[in-house]
Amino acid sequence: MVSASIVGASGYAGGELLRLLLGHPSFKVKQVTSETWAGKPVHFVHPNLRGRTELRFVKLEDLEPCDVLFLALPHGQAMYQIEHFASLAHYIVDLSADFRLKDPADYRRWYEVEHPAPHWLPLFTYGLPEIHREEIRSSRYVSGVGCNAACSILALYPLYRRKLVEMAIVDVKVGSSEGGSKPTQASHHPERAGVMRPYAPASHRHLAELVQELNFGEKPQIYFTVTSVDAVRGALATCHCFLKEPVSEKELWKIYREDYGAEPFIRLVSAKQGIHRYPDPKVLAGSNYCDIGFAVEEGTNRVVVMGAIDNLMKGSAGNAVQAANLMLGFPETAGLDFPGLHPV
Amino acid sequence: MVSASIVGASGYAGGELLRLLLGHPSFKVKQVTSETWAGKPVHFVHPNLRGRTELRFVKLEDLEPCDVLFLALPHGQAMYQIEHFASLAHYIVDLSADFRLKDPADYRRWYEVEHPAPHWLPLFTYGLPEIHREEIRSSRYVSGVGCNAACSILALYPLYRRKLVEMAIVDVKVGSSEGGSKPTQASHHPERAGVMRPYAPASHRHLAELVQELNFGEKPQIYFTVTSVDAVRGALATCHCFLKEPVSEKELWKIYREDYGAEPFIRLVSAKQGIHRYPDPKVLAGSNYCDIGFAVEEGTNRVVVMGAIDNLMKGSAGNAVQAANLMLGFPETAGLDFPGLHPV
Amino acid sequence: MVSASIVGASGYAGGELLRLLLGHPSFKVKQVTSETWAGKPVHFVHPNLRGRTELRFVKLEDLEPCDVLFLALPHGQAMYQIEHFASLAHYIVDLSADFRLKDPADYRRWYEVEHPAPHWLPLFTYGLPEIHREEIRSSRYVSGVGCNAACSILALYPLYRRKLVEMAIVDVKVGSSEGGSKPTQASHHPERAGVMRPYAPASHRHLAELVQELNFGEKPQIYFTVTSVDAVRGALATCHCFLKEPVSEKELWKIYREDYGAEPFIRLVSAKQGIHRYPDPKVLAGSNYCDIGFAVEEGTNRVVVMGAIDNLMKGSAGNAVQAANLMLGFPETAGLDFPGLHPV
Amino acid sequence: MVSASIVGASGYAGGELLRLLLGHPSFKVKQVTSETWAGKPVHFVHPNLRGRTELRFVKLEDLEPCDVLFLALPHGQAMYQIEHFASLAHYIVDLSADFRLKDPADYRRWYEVEHPAPHWLPLFTYGLPEIHREEIRSSRYVSGVGCNAACSILALYPLYRRKLVEMAIVDVKVGSSEGGSKPTQASHHPERAGVMRPYAPASHRHLAELVQELNFGEKPQIYFTVTSVDAVRGALATCHCFLKEPVSEKELWKIYREDYGAEPFIRLVSAKQGIHRYPDPKVLAGSNYCDIGFAVEEGTNRVVVMGAIDNLMKGSAGNAVQAANLMLGFPETAGLDFPGLHPV
Repeated sequence: MVSASIVGASGYAGGELLRLLLGHPSFKVKQVTSETWAGKPVHFVHPNLRGRTELRFVKLEDLEPCDVLFLALPHGQAMYQIEHFASLAHYIVDLSADFRLKDPADYRRWYEVEHPAPHWLPLFTYGLPEIHREEIRSSRYVSGVGCNAACSILALYPLYRRKLVEMAIVDVKVGSSEGGSKPTQASHHPERAGVMRPYAPASHRHLAELVQELNFGEKPQIYFTVTSVDAVRGALATCHCFLKEPVSEKELWKIYREDYGAEPFIRLVSAKQGIHRYPDPKVLAGSNYCDIGFAVEEGTNRVVVMGAIDNLMKGSAGNAVQAANLMLGFPETAGLDFPGLHPV
Repeated sequence: MVSASIVGASGYAGGELLRLLLGHPSFKVKQVTSETWAGKPVHFVHPNLRGRTELRFVKLEDLEPCDVLFLALPHGQAMYQIEHFASLAHYIVDLSADFRLKDPADYRRWYEVEHPAPHWLPLFTYGLPEIHREEIRSSRYVSGVGCNAACSILALYPLYRRKLVEMAIVDVKVGSSEGGSKPTQASHHPERAGVMRPYAPASHRHLAELVQELNFGEKPQIYFTVTSVDAVRGALATCHCFLKEPVSEKELWKIYREDYGAEPFIRLVSAKQGIHRYPDPKVLAGSNYCDIGFAVEEGTNRVVVMGAIDNLMKGSAGNAVQAANLMLGFPETAGLDFPGLHPV
Repeated sequence: MVSASIVGASGYAGGELLRLLLGHPSFKVKQVTSETWAGKPVHFVHPNLRGRTELRFVKLEDLEPCDVLFLALPHGQAMYQIEHFASLAHYIVDLSADFRLKDPADYRRWYEVEHPAPHWLPLFTYGLPEIHREEIRSSRYVSGVGCNAACSILALYPLYRRKLVEMAIVDVKVGSSEGGSKPTQASHHPERAGVMRPYAPASHRHLAELVQELNFGEKPQIYFTVTSVDAVRGALATCHCFLKEPVSEKELWKIYREDYGAEPFIRLVSAKQGIHRYPDPKVLAGSNYCDIGFAVEEGTNRVVVMGAIDNLMKGSAGNAVQAANLMLGFPETAGLDFPGLHPV
Repeated sequence: MVSASIVGASGYAGGELLRLLLGHPSFKVKQVTSETWAGKPVHFVHPNLRGRTELRFVKLEDLEPCDVLFLALPHGQAMYQIEHFASLAHYIVDLSADFRLKDPADYRRWYEVEHPAPHWLPLFTYGLPEIHREEIRSSRYVSGVGCNAACSILALYPLYRRKLVEMAIVDVKVGSSEGGSKPTQASHHPERAGVMRPYAPASHRHLAELVQELNFGEKPQIYFTVTSVDAVRGALATCHCFLKEPVSEKELWKIYREDYGAEPFIRLVSAKQGIHRYPDPKVLAGSNYCDIGFAVEEGTNRVVVMGAIDNLMKGSAGNAVQAANLMLGFPETAGLDFPGLHPV
């Protein structure tokens, strides 16, 4: 058994990570930190874990060495303490945005911060296994993925990789858990229930990840919009793609099967009938799948590609475990076998 | 036109009151206060009122005299300033709990406060028009009603008035707007969506109002439980009544028609078929109705009486306007004609 | 008082129309038809109207002459009976799609029907007052609007009218009431709750209305996608516009104020702070507003324009009453003064 | 590996069963039947299982022998075919109500049917392991449990077993999946979303199970009410108990720990602080837990006991697998280890 600790385990991503690691055949959770809830049993915050563990939160200052350290802190914290964390564990998986981007200038632009440890940026691998599997296998430091970025990148990657795309407008719909566990006016139930609320119409910081990861020799022209809708979990990326040349649905099937046919966590969902014709995050809660579908607008070069995920799973904790499995030589799907519920 | 000001107008009850008064034929809104949002236009907080008024919030210290003062402060504030408020307006309607109860001891028990102005308690009329219409007409000071209390009292009143009830267990289901406009961990959308959360299983302070208002010579034996469910507006009281003697459904119809047949805001809803057989707060959003229905458990002395309201309307602001209409000699239904939506 | 009857009044648009006409100062509702519910009181189907009217549904065959006939039948029915309806009333407002499109070929393409009364198409005015106010005033026959089309057209109209747009991708989010009152597998609550379900990714028939109404000398290049989200009422059009030249936010304000500054049912919502910065249909339930906002993507020619409506109001029944007010010379806002609720 | 087939696998309970059996270490699913969807892959109906199995639905007439047959048909079907099913499998678990009740008269009263196979009733064990564990171990035929009955019985059992209860009023809140997978007017999303809809105020057929299972020498006096609220999964039983004598909270803890301390699927949830103080089905989706909590009304003999479950798990499919595990000598928790999600 490999020992793992979670820094920032009282948040939603941290809690999901804890659920996954407690059920993982090869990890043993050693410590979980929370400054606010130190001393409390984890089920005080994560009621689903009642009876599953005797763990209590500890303070960060009491963190001990372990084999793998999972960092689930809010953005802008791990970057200041990375040396310390690296002294405690051989492997680090950071779920925050602090080491996702390669270019320090991107941190200035999108996160309005001068990155304090820019020499660490090249040491981290962008942890999306479908794109960086081999690099992850040989990495000690892996960064997580932005949830909105993950479903968008996975939806677009086969087209960009083939340099088929002229331009893409990505319109993402998201649930409330994306906002984290801290109550705000925006997350107050009477205000948040039933919304169709434009959140970031003209730009969202996850765009930086798309531009970085979908650059195959030419800077991708992508526009990115996020709208909050009424769900707790889930992100759906509707990618309106304008291709350099029209592509038929048959060719799309071929392209996506070629890239994703062997992927354990990607499913192609593009049917002609039934109510489950296209990807919908609703059926993915708790699962690590990214469901991808597409539709061709006949007679045009427009293709709509849709990618759906559970933002706390494939968009965060699930993907992190998948990456850690690769780093440590475990089966890639270990601990990630929950298929999701229907209905839910 | 009568001038009215609202103290505490940035909360949900205050905002609903503002909506009603802006649409009222005989009131002119003079000022609305909010310490937090002073200077901001009201639509910054209440987006439905955009384009409906040029009013901006003012600080309490800038409150000027007016004809009617509506107090929509959190519990435990108006009781300390009642002399000041009374110096500003001839009529006062207080939506908080501060002047609902007649016995100062009840404040100690249920609100854990020594009431600072107990001599004001007898000056206030409990503002439920269906029970205290004539007193309200001749009052200068009227208190609002607890939302959970309002639907329960209206459901039970005809039975208690006739001394038919041995005991009642009132099981109330409530939406999230009951908790007010301030975000908390409990109201955080990811935590609050989809709940069936026992809130106050063994006792809830609104019980004090039931015991006070349903006392017809004998102290009523009532038990009170509140459960939070997934809705923004609405309260449903399921009153499990055990009667001294069995009563038939036909007799119940007679009793409720007798008491409520002429009431403008009470509807009897008790059908044998269709999906709208019984009261459901869902169809009441924005309306001032209290829908009441009942079912007899054959062969027993048990009767289930159900009362449904919009907690911000008949449970708060709507009821307050109804009471103010009576006080000022306006038609009782003035400004309260919205029927609610279907579906919604 | 002008007499009005509603054909197909048991559906959601018909029910909303009935609510509006019952509260209208100048209309008197004469008859409401429903083949399924003939004989039943309207509150059996529309529980919000309990106590508001003694009307019962009648069969279509029992329909009598009246001043204004509102048709709220499913698509593809009124077109076969228009002669009969026209023999019963001087004025007709048809909420269905049957007379919205000018070109019979559009019916073949989008509705897969050979229009049986093509000579009636030019007699109908497309009933969006903001665009066709004067024509409506002088019309006897007015067609309703597609709900998704309405919010999209209103959002885009000022830009298209000025020939500023190169291309637009319209990504619409919709609630469940758009699907009508008939239960289906897709509308079954366990399947429909919490969805982000791509409904019509590559094309939706309302596109025909956009192309027709936004044609100012050049056929507009518009792409249209509809996604179902968890709400009962509401449609939000996120219009990703690529302009021929960049336009600043200041210029956008000028353009939209110029066109809509005097419109009674259009509000511009585009703020820099607060949680209500942009249009959200959540706050519009029951109101006839179309809220419009915009965001400029700095350094590009992309503008995101958002339009939000209550699909049963400005997207259907409310807009129909607004048009009827114009036709009959009533104040344009008569019967449409409900501002919506907050929170809800 | 033991072979299992599911009859009626396109419904919600059948689908949940299929999910569980596909992930079970000792069962191999042989066939799944559906008259409607015969020939279709299971993911056409249960999208969560896409990629998890190659199974397609078959018709009932094509059902072959297997080791264990799970029956998930609507009520009133298995009772007519039990001889046939028994000829195909040594073990049968029936999730419907057809063999839950011991007394044929109960079928007449609650299901309005003359049971066609009354001699089979004593051959079935009521499949609630917490109450009938040893009987189940030695049974070939086990009946499922009513979902509302399951959470109520488990909440009340320790008190009834000790003959402490004078009377109980059980007020159950339920989600929409209880109504099954067939769309109806009542389940139509626009009608079902946001309801607090009294469903069976004065009596519900699951009462028969409570009376049967809580009879310890004296017929229990129980009243039962069901209200639909807005959730897909979940049932919460609020049991208002009047005890023969007051019992302290400390004694309650002792009683419930004594009975349930070693139960793998029962957790006691009764805290003084935090937002997860009491049982809430929200956190149980997909898990087999029944969370139980209680509150004492000081100074009275009233105790409120709350029981929360996922109706498709502990209230149906999960409980059935737990019972099958016992029958077949597998570890009781096999295949049932999913802890539920937070938040969801």
